[in-house]
Amino acid sequence: MKIAVLKAKKDPRVGATPETVKKLAALGAEVSIETGAGEAAGFSDAAYQEMGASTGEAESVLSGADIVVVSSPPGKSKLASMGRGAKLIGLLDPWEEQERLADYAGAGVDAFAMELLPRITRAQSMDVLSSQANLAGYKAVVDAAHEYGRAFPMMMTAAGTVAPAKVFVMGAGVAGLQAIATAKRLGAVVSATDVRAAAGEQVESLGGTFIFVKEAMEEGEGKGGYAKELTPEQQQAQKDLVAEHLKKMDIVITTALIPGRPAPKLLTTEMVTSMRPGGVVVDLAAPRGGNVEGGDGEEAFTLGATKVLAPKNILAGLPGEASNLYARNLLNFITLITDKEEKQVAVDWEDEIVRGIALTRDGQIVHEQFGGSPPIQ
Amino acid sequence: MKIAVLKAKKDPRVGATPETVKKLAALGAEVSIETGAGEAAGFSDAAYQEMGASTGEAESVLSGADIVVVSSPPGKSKLASMGRGAKLIGLLDPWEEQERLADYAGAGVDAFAMELLPRITRAQSMDVLSSQANLAGYKAVVDAAHEYGRAFPMMMTAAGTVAPAKVFVMGAGVAGLQAIATAKRLGAVVSATDVRAAAGEQVESLGGTFIFVKEAMEEGEGKGGYAKELTPEQQQAQKDLVAEHLKKMDIVITTALIPGRPAPKLLTTEMVTSMRPGGVVVDLAAPRGGNVEGGDGEEAFTLGATKVLAPKNILAGLPGEASNLYARNLLNFITLITDKEEKQVAVDWEDEIVRGIALTRDGQIVHEQFGGSPPIQ
Repeated sequence: MKIAVLKAKKDPRVGATPETVKKLAALGAEVSIETGAGEAAGFSDAAYQEMGASTGEAESVLSGADIVVVSSPPGKSKLASMGRGAKLIGLLDPWEEQERLADYAGAGVDAFAMELLPRITRAQSMDVLSSQANLAGYKAVVDAAHEYGRAFPMMMTAAGTVAPAKVFVMGAGVAGLQAIATAKRLGAVVSATDVRAAAGEQVESLGGTFIFVKEAMEEGEGKGGYAKELTPEQQQAQKDLVAEHLKKMDIVITTALIPGRPAPKLLTTEMVTSMRPGGVVVDLAAPRGGNVEGGDGEEAFTLGATKVLAPKNILAGLPGEASNLYARNLLNFITLITDKEEKQVAVDWEDEIVRGIALTRDGQIVHEQFGGSPPIQ
Repeated sequence: MKIAVLKAKKDPRVGATPETVKKLAALGAEVSIETGAGEAAGFSDAAYQEMGASTGEAESVLSGADIVVVSSPPGKSKLASMGRGAKLIGLLDPWEEQERLADYAGAGVDAFAMELLPRITRAQSMDVLSSQANLAGYKAVVDAAHEYGRAFPMMMTAAGTVAPAKVFVMGAGVAGLQAIATAKRLGAVVSATDVRAAAGEQVESLGGTFIFVKEAMEEGEGKGGYAKELTPEQQQAQKDLVAEHLKKMDIVITTALIPGRPAPKLLTTEMVTSMRPGGVVVDLAAPRGGNVEGGDGEEAFTLGATKVLAPKNILAGLPGEASNLYARNLLNFITLITDKEEKQVAVDWEDEIVRGIALTRDGQIVHEQFGGSPPIQ
């Protein structure tokens, strides 16, 4: 069983680290790394070689590979070097890169998009979106603190007290919760909101204040931890509450994503410019069009006296850690599709996880969300 | 009494904020701000005007000014616009900019260099070096976290645990202690060293580990909280201890400065390259030549697999907060040299603080450190 690890053109993350190479070898795999694949993430070719991997140019690395690991969709020439039946695994961005599915099918490559992983307990250790969102939430706060012209913590000095920064996190999912925790660590006064009333408890357990219309909170939760749909009046009250709250904020982190759809616009230009002068917004939804209006896809822009950071790939700034977790997620998935005894690939196409993320199989698009029909077994 | 506030060419800090303008007005001063002086720090001309200040070009602002406030040494044309007897107050960098002292004397300007402030209790509220060092220590850690490719805190994820970053702070003065506190807040494992054994207690009270040769610690302290001089054997043992410790470090912050002398070299290239790959060093002594060897005055460079940040003015990245504290420090000094009843400048040249920082008076260089003889009263 041969596993090829490719270098991405733009993304500094890599799908295997020296740590996971060692473990892949223990599965019986021969691992071959494209020259320089880990360099931007801080892993030298030598470090991989020490763990038993070979390194070389893409073509030789791909030759005869049973599994191909990537951090972003591979280019056409690399795809052409993959053999029929090769398993391509990684962040394949199936929504934005939907036209590539036909290419994978045409090449006879079985492609697995890690962002489609079902959110079930057994899949948690492979959950790339969670592991990367967690780091993105941390990095958003670090970047905001770096950009911000004042300090986060309260400081008592002989010349007087420095007031702490006021940080507001919009969306209390994995990224949002880590942003709350990090901003709190740094000494800021933190608040957050979410469409789910149930998120309030988590926000408060991290020391944040939950900004949510009271009446809607009191009416309790709907099915599965989700809030009941807000009435139109409650929706308006929530909007007004947030708009009023924003006027007192120094830092805002937005994290609202809807799988497979453009990011919802949470902040109008008017709302951003109403913030305290010198503030910073970090828009973690930028790769999906952004939660902030204006900016025309720029990665940094200014609205009034507020700087907006809208990074297309915030984890490019945290490549070592992002690769560490990403590679471990992939290792866990590869373990699932490997027969340890026989030391070869053995995909169980009936497995819920496999069915959840398989885009193509045997020259066909098989994922329902992308026009495929799941194969009959 | 007229106070002029000048815009610096390169330094985004400003010597008065809308907050201190209000208080200066309460002292009876008419405050005049050079157009755009606070802009880079987040204070608009309009914000100053609201507090009663006027704004205008340098020449009109300086015309008839009794006090001139700067964040860095003024250029020759601005100096020429100051009237004889004007009090020039600010960070005048007397060691690096020593040749300017003759210019100040020639212009008949009485210049006060805030970095020369005696470290006495009464002067604490004016202590520019402390207030700026405090912020520099905070900013050093924020910049290190921004640059570092991994995360500071330990993170428990479904894909495994992310180990915390190991941070080492060299020099436990004001900047070093704030760096320790900030790195600790962010979740790093923090250690520190200092030439003073007495610093160990402060380091430990902030949750850091003190790296110091044990025998020297046990021999106790010398006069005034300073350690007894280390014996040559102890010095060598301390060097070896630090060199060994560095090999395990991800982040190093150096803060060693000696007033009026070039910064001591603490880190050789060999020591930096011995750190863990992907590490970051922040050299806070860069404005005085740096604690790190190599780099040739560059503000960012790489030694082996370690990035070194050596900012010439790290507080240019924290201009709002730095100005807030700087302006308050200056306000406190201006209060000292003002007669509140008469609403005019009234310098007590006998005052220990005044004597400590006065560079020139009545056309003469008067500071002993710079070849002057203090005037006989």
